[in-house]
Amino acid sequence: VGQTAREIHLVEYPKGEVSPDNFVTVEVELPDPEPGQVLVRNTFTSVDPGMRLRLRESGPAGYFNAFPLNAAMDDIWAVGEVVESRADGFEPGDAVWHATGWRDYGIVTAGKPALAGIATLAKIDTAVAPAEKYLGPLGAMGVTAYAGIVDAAELRGDDIVWVSAAAGAVGSLAAQIAKLRGHFVIGSAGSETKVRFLLDELGLDAAFSYRDGPVLAQLRAVAPDGIDVYFDNVGGDHLQAAIAALRNWGRAALCGAISEYESTSPTPGPNNMFQLTANNLTLRGFRGSAYQHRLPDVVRELGGWLADGRLKYQETIIDGLDRAPEALMRVLAGDTTGKALVRVD
Amino acid sequence: VGQTAREIHLVEYPKGEVSPDNFVTVEVELPDPEPGQVLVRNTFTSVDPGMRLRLRESGPAGYFNAFPLNAAMDDIWAVGEVVESRADGFEPGDAVWHATGWRDYGIVTAGKPALAGIATLAKIDTAVAPAEKYLGPLGAMGVTAYAGIVDAAELRGDDIVWVSAAAGAVGSLAAQIAKLRGHFVIGSAGSETKVRFLLDELGLDAAFSYRDGPVLAQLRAVAPDGIDVYFDNVGGDHLQAAIAALRNWGRAALCGAISEYESTSPTPGPNNMFQLTANNLTLRGFRGSAYQHRLPDVVRELGGWLADGRLKYQETIIDGLDRAPEALMRVLAGDTTGKALVRVD
Repeated sequence: VGQTAREIHLVEYPKGEVSPDNFVTVEVELPDPEPGQVLVRNTFTSVDPGMRLRLRESGPAGYFNAFPLNAAMDDIWAVGEVVESRADGFEPGDAVWHATGWRDYGIVTAGKPALAGIATLAKIDTAVAPAEKYLGPLGAMGVTAYAGIVDAAELRGDDIVWVSAAAGAVGSLAAQIAKLRGHFVIGSAGSETKVRFLLDELGLDAAFSYRDGPVLAQLRAVAPDGIDVYFDNVGGDHLQAAIAALRNWGRAALCGAISEYESTSPTPGPNNMFQLTANNLTLRGFRGSAYQHRLPDVVRELGGWLADGRLKYQETIIDGLDRAPEALMRVLAGDTTGKALVRVD
Repeated sequence: VGQTAREIHLVEYPKGEVSPDNFVTVEVELPDPEPGQVLVRNTFTSVDPGMRLRLRESGPAGYFNAFPLNAAMDDIWAVGEVVESRADGFEPGDAVWHATGWRDYGIVTAGKPALAGIATLAKIDTAVAPAEKYLGPLGAMGVTAYAGIVDAAELRGDDIVWVSAAAGAVGSLAAQIAKLRGHFVIGSAGSETKVRFLLDELGLDAAFSYRDGPVLAQLRAVAPDGIDVYFDNVGGDHLQAAIAALRNWGRAALCGAISEYESTSPTPGPNNMFQLTANNLTLRGFRGSAYQHRLPDVVRELGGWLADGRLKYQETIIDGLDRAPEALMRVLAGDTTGKALVRVD
């Protein structure tokens, strides 16, 4: 007989804010793995703000597909351990990385790309770092931060850098890459606690809370001569402030706009787009999944800083698969620090 | 005694639309040229949509300075003939290019940069092309088109290109550069006459009038698989449509937003900025003045096409210095084709 598994299913698309009522935990009996498949027991699964975009019937064109209703939620990063294998190269006990998250046990097909064609079943080396780090700085998140600050924003020279949501999972990595490369780095976040974290733990040069006043005024107070690079995790007033503060030849890397994910209607863009022309500015959107070729650079540069303790990395771990929807709510409300993970019980 | 000159002065900043009542023609007596200066008789002077931005007390930060009230309007391109010279290297009769426009006679200092530091007194070779062409394809306008399509938009491979205001001065050059380099080029404009010009004279692959229906629907009709490059002269709904139509890794070069120049309050930006992230798009603003090093490339590539008749170039010439304000109104209303020039009488 097959393994019994608990899966989180989406039962309705949220109207307005995400609520745990939109989800149920379902117990299912898994089939036995077929040739080329493994049975995996998940230990950690990921919670990302970008998931909000998949919780609606029709998401922004070109981005991830919507989660189907009343089915297991696929294309979510997870790490776990092989329990039973019918796939070459995988043995029971192997630590693995895959995209069959938000469940405790799952059947995973080896060599079948998921998640925009990039995630598949892969072994991870837990001697380098604990398994859950492969859901963070040594995985897609590290690539996203690196690609944004290095490739999309073309960090160079003595650029002055602003990172929004800098206490967040990707933001804290992006800010530290710039800082550890020797730049003057400003971070913003949504609470005094996070601001202290940015200054005391990450060692950023300046930090402010967007709740303390208009973003542009606070930015100008710490960067009176302007900025050269902006790493955007927020959109809205933050992006508009960056466009106003960017100096000639400045660049903004657009990683995603958490301020707009909950919105049900199109949000107006910055009202100062003409500054792009006036100051030769570049706005470059990017998806980490388009830069997976950077993974070796990430493991080398970030892995090195992680090993010698210079790269700080925070996780908020929520215990219990059943609490994954609650964890997502907390991420969207800004009520987590660093990467949010669910430890699967 | 000095030369008498007629100058156009701005007497008030327009409230709402530009009107001839905002200007007067003033007769002044010029001083004699001092050492290093020449007296120039202007033959043509330029009328650009971007001048609208200087007709307000405080323009967008970082762009051109406002025109002062009740004074000659400086930093406007002109061509003319040296009448009297006290500057080395200039003789009476020399054809010259400078930035002391909107007057019939003027005193010009050699070697003193004007217009964002780039325009100064320079001799032009009227054997290559008539003097007024140096206010167009062989001057700043050619550089703007070239820098936008080649540098800012990074034209490459088999990019599908859309140029808005493609019957306009800069737009028609940008569209032709792309077309003559072998790309599929779509042009848009504001009248059936202009659409015919784009198809019949410039030989573009497709064209539409934005007055005939929603921009995005018309764009999709001629480019069902999307576009790779957008050269923006309009902003507003045009830029928003481009962001929706740009394919993965697409690029938009933002040359200026004529739709917003008359606006007195900030205009909301595109409501689909998230597409930048979803599709790895780049928006790059640029000012031609930042790419003056491209002038030799422009003279070579565009000069060659101009000489062999492949590059079409339209001018709307308005006769009479006194009608310069009227010419500017017509440019802003879209009631001119190609480069607008005033022939100084």
